[in-house]
Amino acid sequence: MILTVTLNTAVDITYRVRALRPHSSHRVSEVTERPGGKGLNVARVLAALGHRVTVTGFSGGVTGRSLREQLTGCAGLVDALVPVSGPTRRTIAVVDTASGDTTQLNEPGPEITPAEWAAFQETYGHLLRSASAVALCGSLPPGVPVGAYAGLVRAARAAAVPVLLDTSGEPLRRGVAARPDIVKPNADELAELTGSHEPLLATRDARRRGAHAVVASLGARGLLARTPEGLWRAAPPGQMRGNPTGAGDSAVAGLLSGLVENLPWPERLARAVALSAATVLAPVAGEFDRQAYEALANRIAVTEDATAA
Amino acid sequence: MILTVTLNTAVDITYRVRALRPHSSHRVSEVTERPGGKGLNVARVLAALGHRVTVTGFSGGVTGRSLREQLTGCAGLVDALVPVSGPTRRTIAVVDTASGDTTQLNEPGPEITPAEWAAFQETYGHLLRSASAVALCGSLPPGVPVGAYAGLVRAARAAAVPVLLDTSGEPLRRGVAARPDIVKPNADELAELTGSHEPLLATRDARRRGAHAVVASLGARGLLARTPEGLWRAAPPGQMRGNPTGAGDSAVAGLLSGLVENLPWPERLARAVALSAATVLAPVAGEFDRQAYEALANRIAVTEDATAA
Repeated sequence: MILTVTLNTAVDITYRVRALRPHSSHRVSEVTERPGGKGLNVARVLAALGHRVTVTGFSGGVTGRSLREQLTGCAGLVDALVPVSGPTRRTIAVVDTASGDTTQLNEPGPEITPAEWAAFQETYGHLLRSASAVALCGSLPPGVPVGAYAGLVRAARAAAVPVLLDTSGEPLRRGVAARPDIVKPNADELAELTGSHEPLLATRDARRRGAHAVVASLGARGLLARTPEGLWRAAPPGQMRGNPTGAGDSAVAGLLSGLVENLPWPERLARAVALSAATVLAPVAGEFDRQAYEALANRIAVTEDATAA
Repeated sequence: MILTVTLNTAVDITYRVRALRPHSSHRVSEVTERPGGKGLNVARVLAALGHRVTVTGFSGGVTGRSLREQLTGCAGLVDALVPVSGPTRRTIAVVDTASGDTTQLNEPGPEITPAEWAAFQETYGHLLRSASAVALCGSLPPGVPVGAYAGLVRAARAAAVPVLLDTSGEPLRRGVAARPDIVKPNADELAELTGSHEPLLATRDARRRGAHAVVASLGARGLLARTPEGLWRAAPPGQMRGNPTGAGDSAVAGLLSGLVENLPWPERLARAVALSAATVLAPVAGEFDRQAYEALANRIAVTEDATAA
């Protein structure tokens, strides 16, 4: 199975209002709710691609119960979340019906105690034994040490399980130094890590810092992958119109599934870009449009750049 | 016991953010959560005053479970909520830390089925038998007939239980026609009911429509009560600075407790205004400041207006 780790799981709530006006009262016309947090999004896409996936991380309180109930409805997905006393956070996306513009409100997440963090590490160690790959995704809840991902990367490497890291800031900086197989920063995260806004230079710097392969997601320009096997660019055929929520998580699912299927890098990248574009095109935020994915899969331009490697 | 009815219960969530900016992302610095809906607020104040209170209405889903768990912590309060399949709504108050300004997002509430509405009416009928007074509070969730409060007022009167109605719009219009003992509209609700923005005229009109007593809450100006025993004004000593959330519900609790204690109208009104002012002054929205209440209780000016009666 593929293991995805979401330390800061969330119940993602979407509200529709006519137009958000600060300091006034709004009647919400539509409420939707789904399990969230980057690793859970990755897991759903992997399950939809036919992979067996186990999700771990933390869940607690009534929001955590709600999240776990909703996960039981996801075929191919095994829930190995570790219970904690604090409540799982909510994120609220307030969408203006008229313009489609979104205002985001993110709760910080529960305070994790040292004992809960220790319990998670034990569970993680057990799960690694039957994992073909692991993705470490998203922000850290309060109480989890900033070097958490570095430790989880080292444990995966000690267990000979390929590990992908998708986070930001100091947890990314420390995690990269622990030598993960793949990091997938977006342009901002990559610039924050390396100090360079030039993806060609920045991906090289990120590899020097410890990452074996760096796959940078550059929005509409697709992916730039610097790997031990070469340097590639993969781009969708033209601009996709829609909601980019979850597009990065779908790219991670594409990279991981390609990894466990032993696909060469160009095919992994094509799959990641097609899934990402099909997520932007989907009517529901964070889902991917399967027809669009299948139509796009053979239309992704992947080019190798031997000179800049 | 005193019975309070909250058909559209809510989990009231308060978020603190630095300043709400539409179409951007916000990290919530503080999350608080409490059982909400006007009838539950009234019940909490009654319980704090030492009355035995039973709460009924609807609760459902994980939000409903959370609400009921939080109610078990309220001393003096008995939970007789009727379970429904739809989830209890949330209300979110986003408070700007800098200015204290609040942006409100209110979910619509669960769709109530005809069978659930019938189950509620049966429960209500049973509870009326041991009630000394009943308060019908707040909006109706989807699916409940617009004449709901009219029916509940008639049932209370048939059981000889004094009934107070605190709602708005068409449910208020129909409810008033069923001859409740007290209605407690605010200035806007009263104007909507009667077409008059002149409280002296509007309260007279509301009595003609069927209410035995009309107690209009006029914000900082206090209460105007038109009753079979006379016409009174009750006002706090000067402007109160603070959060008016729940001030109207505290006034209802003051009126109801005064009713079951057989206090004369001036004392009921003084208590209602003191509780209301002590709610504005409390640091937590919807709570009342007991010290402020006790200090204010003897300082409320109640004046009878014999000429305008």
